[in-house]
Amino acid sequence: MNNIILHELAFQNDVRPSPFCWRVRLALEHKGLDYSTLPAAFTAIPKVAGGGHKTVPILEHGDGALADSWAIANYLEDTYPDRPSLFGDGGAQGPGWTYALALHTWIQPAVHFPALKVVVLDIYDRIQPQDRAHFLDTREKRFGMSIEAFCAGDLNEKVAAVRKALEPVRAVAKERPFLSGAAPLYADYIVAGFFFWCRAVSLAQVLAPDDPLTPWFERILARFPRIAQESTRTWQGP
Amino acid sequence: MNNIILHELAFQNDVRPSPFCWRVRLALEHKGLDYSTLPAAFTAIPKVAGGGHKTVPILEHGDGALADSWAIANYLEDTYPDRPSLFGDGGAQGPGWTYALALHTWIQPAVHFPALKVVVLDIYDRIQPQDRAHFLDTREKRFGMSIEAFCAGDLNEKVAAVRKALEPVRAVAKERPFLSGAAPLYADYIVAGFFFWCRAVSLAQVLAPDDPLTPWFERILARFPRIAQESTRTWQGP
Repeated sequence: MNNIILHELAFQNDVRPSPFCWRVRLALEHKGLDYSTLPAAFTAIPKVAGGGHKTVPILEHGDGALADSWAIANYLEDTYPDRPSLFGDGGAQGPGWTYALALHTWIQPAVHFPALKVVVLDIYDRIQPQDRAHFLDTREKRFGMSIEAFCAGDLNEKVAAVRKALEPVRAVAKERPFLSGAAPLYADYIVAGFFFWCRAVSLAQVLAPDDPLTPWFERILARFPRIAQESTRTWQGP
Repeated sequence: MNNIILHELAFQNDVRPSPFCWRVRLALEHKGLDYSTLPAAFTAIPKVAGGGHKTVPILEHGDGALADSWAIANYLEDTYPDRPSLFGDGGAQGPGWTYALALHTWIQPAVHFPALKVVVLDIYDRIQPQDRAHFLDTREKRFGMSIEAFCAGDLNEKVAAVRKALEPVRAVAKERPFLSGAAPLYADYIVAGFFFWCRAVSLAQVLAPDDPLTPWFERILARFPRIAQESTRTWQGP
């Protein structure tokens, strides 16, 4: 059994929101691998793939299962060295790898967190009913306040803060077709995962039509037709 | 005349503080180029290299002169394609270039700005006397308050904020010898320039001995002996 199965977070109507799961999907497509995906509710994650994992994505492959998007990306790179590299020339010893790790570390506090203030109530509406108590409990502990208090404030100002936070990658998108230069690498997928998440969970327009990141995101969609199709399907519902 | 002259900001005792000038020095060393440097006070910059430039670094080469560290790095890469690349495989079309541009865009608001709150009074003490009125005027306009008000607060908390802001590159330093992987590239020099600035202008310990960035910075110093020597000399005074 060498099938690859990606276990992903699922909301109502099988919407797949997780930015980390989208990174792995893009990595699988980049490597040209066959894979299938399976949905998991938040509260079902501990039982997925034999159990023992706290978060998705979880990648099942052969007899093993691995969680954490960054670990999975490195696993795919090491396991399929003859497929197109996720990190470019130099592989895990070159700047494509370190750039990806820097963005991986940067994006969650700098971008995901302020974006949560835009979308957290939408997320609450869209998660599966059995996940609601768990979601409220864990998020209110993390934020130190109710989710309503966490996302208080003017929507336009909150969206503007997210857009401003994206400036380091926007500066690149102004100058090159992809965030990794002439072609996309895993660094691109880290940022693309964020936008797949945004459009899966909320109608708030984090990515403005005139943002230089918009044509970049469209290039990502054009490059990965399966993902473009499945992300649109899940976004708009069945 | 093909001599390369780098015009740098100079404080009292010929201390060279500018993080942007250090980036260019490191780029010149990386390319293995001969160069000399000349000091300029803040208020002398508009007259440097024939005039017309508002900021240092200013690179004079042949009949031309060019300001802006990022423009200069690209000029050096284009002018000396047979020397070691500042951006690695793929050059200006690869992830070493986009990584550098992302860090270039990220570091000034995310790191330099909070660090200014630590060092701005030290800078005021160390700039050349003829620069003081200009410095106060431009900074107080930029900050919207006096420099004393700008840097109010607990020193330890301000230093902690800078250290926290460095997390994206610290994560890389934990995993690889250089911020660009196995060998340093211009992305490394952008961050190194920040630390040359810190130690040139202040005794505040932004870089803690147990920070994973410390052995990385020591590797940079070990790789560029001329810079290691000249940055220490100017830091401690004549």
